[in-house]
Amino acid sequence: MAGRSSEFDRIDSFLKPLAAGFQGALGLVDDAGVLTLPASESLVVTTDAMVEGVHYLAGEPPERLARKLLRVNLSDLAAMGAAPYCYTLTLALPPAVEDDWLAAFVSGLANDQAAFGVHLLGGDSVSTPGPPVLSMTAFGRVDNGRMVLRSGAQPSDAVLVSGTVGDGALGLQVARDGVPGLDNAHSRFLAGRYHQPDPRICLGRALPGLATAAADLSDGLMGDLGHICRASGVSAVVDADRVPLSAAALSMIALEPRWRKVALAGGDDYELVFTAPRDAVAAIRAAAAECAVQVTVVGRIVEAEGRSPEARMVDADGTIMNGVAGWQHF
Amino acid sequence: MAGRSSEFDRIDSFLKPLAAGFQGALGLVDDAGVLTLPASESLVVTTDAMVEGVHYLAGEPPERLARKLLRVNLSDLAAMGAAPYCYTLTLALPPAVEDDWLAAFVSGLANDQAAFGVHLLGGDSVSTPGPPVLSMTAFGRVDNGRMVLRSGAQPSDAVLVSGTVGDGALGLQVARDGVPGLDNAHSRFLAGRYHQPDPRICLGRALPGLATAAADLSDGLMGDLGHICRASGVSAVVDADRVPLSAAALSMIALEPRWRKVALAGGDDYELVFTAPRDAVAAIRAAAAECAVQVTVVGRIVEAEGRSPEARMVDADGTIMNGVAGWQHF
Repeated sequence: MAGRSSEFDRIDSFLKPLAAGFQGALGLVDDAGVLTLPASESLVVTTDAMVEGVHYLAGEPPERLARKLLRVNLSDLAAMGAAPYCYTLTLALPPAVEDDWLAAFVSGLANDQAAFGVHLLGGDSVSTPGPPVLSMTAFGRVDNGRMVLRSGAQPSDAVLVSGTVGDGALGLQVARDGVPGLDNAHSRFLAGRYHQPDPRICLGRALPGLATAAADLSDGLMGDLGHICRASGVSAVVDADRVPLSAAALSMIALEPRWRKVALAGGDDYELVFTAPRDAVAAIRAAAAECAVQVTVVGRIVEAEGRSPEARMVDADGTIMNGVAGWQHF
Repeated sequence: MAGRSSEFDRIDSFLKPLAAGFQGALGLVDDAGVLTLPASESLVVTTDAMVEGVHYLAGEPPERLARKLLRVNLSDLAAMGAAPYCYTLTLALPPAVEDDWLAAFVSGLANDQAAFGVHLLGGDSVSTPGPPVLSMTAFGRVDNGRMVLRSGAQPSDAVLVSGTVGDGALGLQVARDGVPGLDNAHSRFLAGRYHQPDPRICLGRALPGLATAAADLSDGLMGDLGHICRASGVSAVVDADRVPLSAAALSMIALEPRWRKVALAGGDDYELVFTAPRDAVAAIRAAAAECAVQVTVVGRIVEAEGRSPEARMVDADGTIMNGVAGWQHF
């Protein structure tokens, strides 16, 4: 398995098994794949890429990269209320990347394909003189008209988030530089949250008819809520003290208070942020419990009042917090 | 327009206009796009990437690159008999690529969107420390069960190609190094065939019900016909003298006979190679005439006779030609 196969052989040896048994992929022997849905369903399509040196560091285990790539794409489907279906993959890899690496990458995908019930629909493998660029387009299925869009938030809606916020951003810090003094179990938890997000598919599937708008947390809580605000023409106020933080995050903040803003700014959590009428919150809590995921009301939607729609975070004393607006990849 | 916008601003300023008016794209403000087809139709999905230094040379005009990227994807749809519908785009660009470049790239896409009736469904723009990697997933529509696959070729079928073969491979030579002694008009024609392929959508749409198998010419005539042979479990014999060559290609071969094999090996022509029962050839010719494209019978399908399915090219004296098997990008 050492060495490097041709691009054709790579598709044959490594990608074809990921498409096995999925009729629409036509065994990857054709020019394209084919999807046929019942008339009652729509196809939801999202695309996300990861670049070495931008979205991940050289030397990361390929199994983990593969699973992260799939999961960040599935997270977008979850935010729309769609059920995962299949994906296409385009790998641009430098000549130095050997078949061993690709075999491990494919094995990560194979594991998560089974976990999430998805299949490879089509793939392309090309050579690049630069760093790896891993691109995926993921497909979900949703009953017609039952998508949750970003544009439906209404004044007086509650703002909710799933799970805990900030673990991804703190986990990046742990994974990259380590955090002296942080308990091993907490370090592992945070790094795991960064490396292996858990797309909230079950919760996302429960939101159509309950939530008015939703997005997944990839740009940070305020960043992604800001997208909802602009799409909906409303503003949002989030109470910093209500933002749910994990025990590991609290432990890291106890070591150094400056981590609090990093956690609140968030990013790469792949939780869901969503809005809903107050009277839907109880039903949402019940649905979330069925999915074994926690949801927390963190704020409210307000009129934009003639200003540009925006998401604001206020601290316990009512002052607007700065420095929590968004998230940039390293 | 000099300088470089953030990734968010790039999507807002450059990609959103390409999605304008296409309902499924949701204005690119959501986590994903949504496609709803009539129950009578299937979606055909293909994915293809272009990497600087592998599939094109640095410094090529971005308008032309954009159009080539779209066209090579549409060519895959044509080979399946599908009508072009929409596409997603992932651009991994180095920081040195300025907004001017992106504006020109988008303008190339906008022109071809109008020409081919397609829209941007979703897009992602990411940064890379390496060379540009341009990835596209393209979507076509086809009546259920009316796709033309690679797997349907039958012994005694005729093998046909559209247009002329070899212009792409010779055009690469012209574009990269020039060909001393070759007439200017012929040079321009060949380089144009390489840079700006013409996906055979009209012909592809006419083939369901007539052709038994089809592929587009991206890996070369024998390479792509070989894919059909392996998918169908048959072999093919192509007569070198029947392969249609353009006047420009013949003129280049007249200068140096070694170009003949380069032309016959082909590659990047984005014509269609397809198989059909002999009694369907007249109807195919009539359909091709409606599309203003020439089709030529170049060979026949034969039993694999216990050997591995393969495509063979024979010269006028009946000997099997070597060195025409496939095509590698530079």
